[in-house]
Amino acid sequence: MQAEIITIGDEILIGQIVDTNSAFIAKELNKIGISVFQITSVQDDKKHILKSLKEAQDNVDIIIVTGGLGPTKDDITKHTIAEYFSDTLVQNKDVLKNIETLWEKYIKQPLSQINKDQALIPSKSKPLMNRFGSAPGMWIEQQNKTFISLPGVPFEMKALMQNEVLPRLKDKYELPFILHKTLLTYGLGESMLAAKIETWEDNLPDYIKLAYLPNLGKVRLRLSAKGFDEEKIRKEVEKQISIVIPLIQDIYVGFEDEETSIELKIGKQLTQLGKTLSVAESCTGGMIAERITANAGASAYFKGGIVSYATQTKINVLGVSKEFIKKHSVVSTQVAEAMVKGAQKIFDTDFAIAVTGNAGPIKGDSNADVGTVYIAIATSNKVYSKEYHLGNHRLKVVNKAANKAFEMLQKEISKN
Amino acid sequence: MQAEIITIGDEILIGQIVDTNSAFIAKELNKIGISVFQITSVQDDKKHILKSLKEAQDNVDIIIVTGGLGPTKDDITKHTIAEYFSDTLVQNKDVLKNIETLWEKYIKQPLSQINKDQALIPSKSKPLMNRFGSAPGMWIEQQNKTFISLPGVPFEMKALMQNEVLPRLKDKYELPFILHKTLLTYGLGESMLAAKIETWEDNLPDYIKLAYLPNLGKVRLRLSAKGFDEEKIRKEVEKQISIVIPLIQDIYVGFEDEETSIELKIGKQLTQLGKTLSVAESCTGGMIAERITANAGASAYFKGGIVSYATQTKINVLGVSKEFIKKHSVVSTQVAEAMVKGAQKIFDTDFAIAVTGNAGPIKGDSNADVGTVYIAIATSNKVYSKEYHLGNHRLKVVNKAANKAFEMLQKEISKN
Repeated sequence: MQAEIITIGDEILIGQIVDTNSAFIAKELNKIGISVFQITSVQDDKKHILKSLKEAQDNVDIIIVTGGLGPTKDDITKHTIAEYFSDTLVQNKDVLKNIETLWEKYIKQPLSQINKDQALIPSKSKPLMNRFGSAPGMWIEQQNKTFISLPGVPFEMKALMQNEVLPRLKDKYELPFILHKTLLTYGLGESMLAAKIETWEDNLPDYIKLAYLPNLGKVRLRLSAKGFDEEKIRKEVEKQISIVIPLIQDIYVGFEDEETSIELKIGKQLTQLGKTLSVAESCTGGMIAERITANAGASAYFKGGIVSYATQTKINVLGVSKEFIKKHSVVSTQVAEAMVKGAQKIFDTDFAIAVTGNAGPIKGDSNADVGTVYIAIATSNKVYSKEYHLGNHRLKVVNKAANKAFEMLQKEISKN
Repeated sequence: MQAEIITIGDEILIGQIVDTNSAFIAKELNKIGISVFQITSVQDDKKHILKSLKEAQDNVDIIIVTGGLGPTKDDITKHTIAEYFSDTLVQNKDVLKNIETLWEKYIKQPLSQINKDQALIPSKSKPLMNRFGSAPGMWIEQQNKTFISLPGVPFEMKALMQNEVLPRLKDKYELPFILHKTLLTYGLGESMLAAKIETWEDNLPDYIKLAYLPNLGKVRLRLSAKGFDEEKIRKEVEKQISIVIPLIQDIYVGFEDEETSIELKIGKQLTQLGKTLSVAESCTGGMIAERITANAGASAYFKGGIVSYATQTKINVLGVSKEFIKKHSVVSTQVAEAMVKGAQKIFDTDFAIAVTGNAGPIKGDSNADVGTVYIAIATSNKVYSKEYHLGNHRLKVVNKAANKAFEMLQKEISKN
């Protein structure tokens, strides 16, 4: 069973946005056993969309189209799909009702004609109800092929994929099992790694594919397998992994788990333990708090944070004394530890994180080199900190500092 | 002059990575007057790559291929390109020298055969020297079409585009001028915005295209024009912008160049005025602080923030009384205003933002419906707040709340 993803929108073709929808859809399809043959991005142009639909229909079984479903004149996907199927647009009562409900609840203004027209769908299509927006998804079957049209707004598309599209595809098709396992290695180049595991690679069974994904000192090794015998595939991939790991022991650091972020892991652990967390952030500027609270269950363990961006805030809010900062410099292990104690006390939590550093591009209130970051962790019985040098790219420094802080915290929590 | 971008790699088709290369290439091509007709992502599969090259050759003048140039067995692009042109691979002395230099400098190990083989290129191609890696870019011309093959590693691809590909394309072709101008608006839905500017839109000259890009309370309006008379295009687009801005004055915040966001605009205004800002965030969880501090110059005006995620934190840290919260509910206009006063006082700032609300997915410490958010703004002489209903999708509520907060603040700052 093969799919093609067609993303529609001039904004993609002029590079104004990065198309993240395709990767999401491809990953979700893979999970249920559908391979993606091709991803095609095309302009908001009728002729071009029609041509792409035809080509996709010739190549694959399932065609998923995103984008171009908005209410304005530049959105032409719906009319083009109707034309493709020699169909006409008809008003769908359920879709109209959904739009009316959304408007009543959130917009509180009368529906205009172009809002009502969002309820027009090709007569041959089944609507897929969009709880988050006025553009419905559409499902059309023709000659054993399934066409699915989804809005391009990522969170609307994601909800429709998960609630409507994937369950229907699983119902309709008998799908194989696809397994991807990715091993992370650090410190050896792609070609040397390949030389190291050549014999193993040459002896892999036909149905297991190996890929090398190099990126700045890190190489990911991905094993991909597909078939109807899930147990056999799992066993064989496990076996091959158990053979290769000893060959790369010195550079292998673990599996890449796509779904799990370290902050989610921390959240689960804290919830289970009934422990709480607070943060004091300087150069990370709220990113750590934001990543924690992006998890819907965070209120169970996260009490709050202080973004002490100005030195004055470290004094006034976190209670670090002026003299202490003067003596040790605001970017120092001592100030990081004083900040973390302040946060732990103010928020009355079991654990606390504090970060102080210089993310650049220029030196700030201290003489520390750009990229110097101190991270402190407080637990119920100790406070400690570490010094890091995280490069000279602001965004990289901030992101790496947040990752390091989570890594340090997670190690402490795991001791419980 | 039209181009197609073909990105090669199973990692794209299984959703393991997001293809960011295409957006970069598309944007750079647009800047020198080349439109992108289509972006196609295909697997590391010879037959499929050959088919895509053929289709691209039929549709466009310039074909840019990225990926599949590594030294390992899963990398087949180079051999496939040689086959496409009925060509053979020959060793290129300059490329070999470049690889030897890189190895001497960074790897400090003898070259293996597969490293040396990176210097093999189709005999019909000109190499494009890769200063950052062993895979060269390749340039092949045939029947008035230009084929360019680049490595998939983003920073190698970017350097090759900028140093080798773009200058050669500008040399070879007489290119038109492409102009994109994007206006940022906050606070009005796509369909209502469209109704507001309908007459203007209908009277745009043929060669100016308008697009609406809605996203979480923000709508970007993009004008795109293309032609050989740069001066005429610039003048006409400026003229059209000067007509539309008065029509959308209350929701227009500025142009989007790649660097501009509402928080950057706020930053510039505050810096000019010498005024300061602090925040108190509940449901936005640090996102507002993080977006402010993502700007390198934020230390000039941002003193800090409090993420008062737990009700207890609103009491202990922000000084909102327990009785007051009990009386009004933690999600209320009164508590938002008390929070903003707390932040303004604690951080001693000219302006402050506070947000309290329920982002869902379930009701929290208050009975407020999911999506209910109160945003308060404090200035030097007043405090006020607004109630919003931002839908029932957690990510959407949080992002919209942050956008709304910036929108309210920006209006207040602009009065100075």
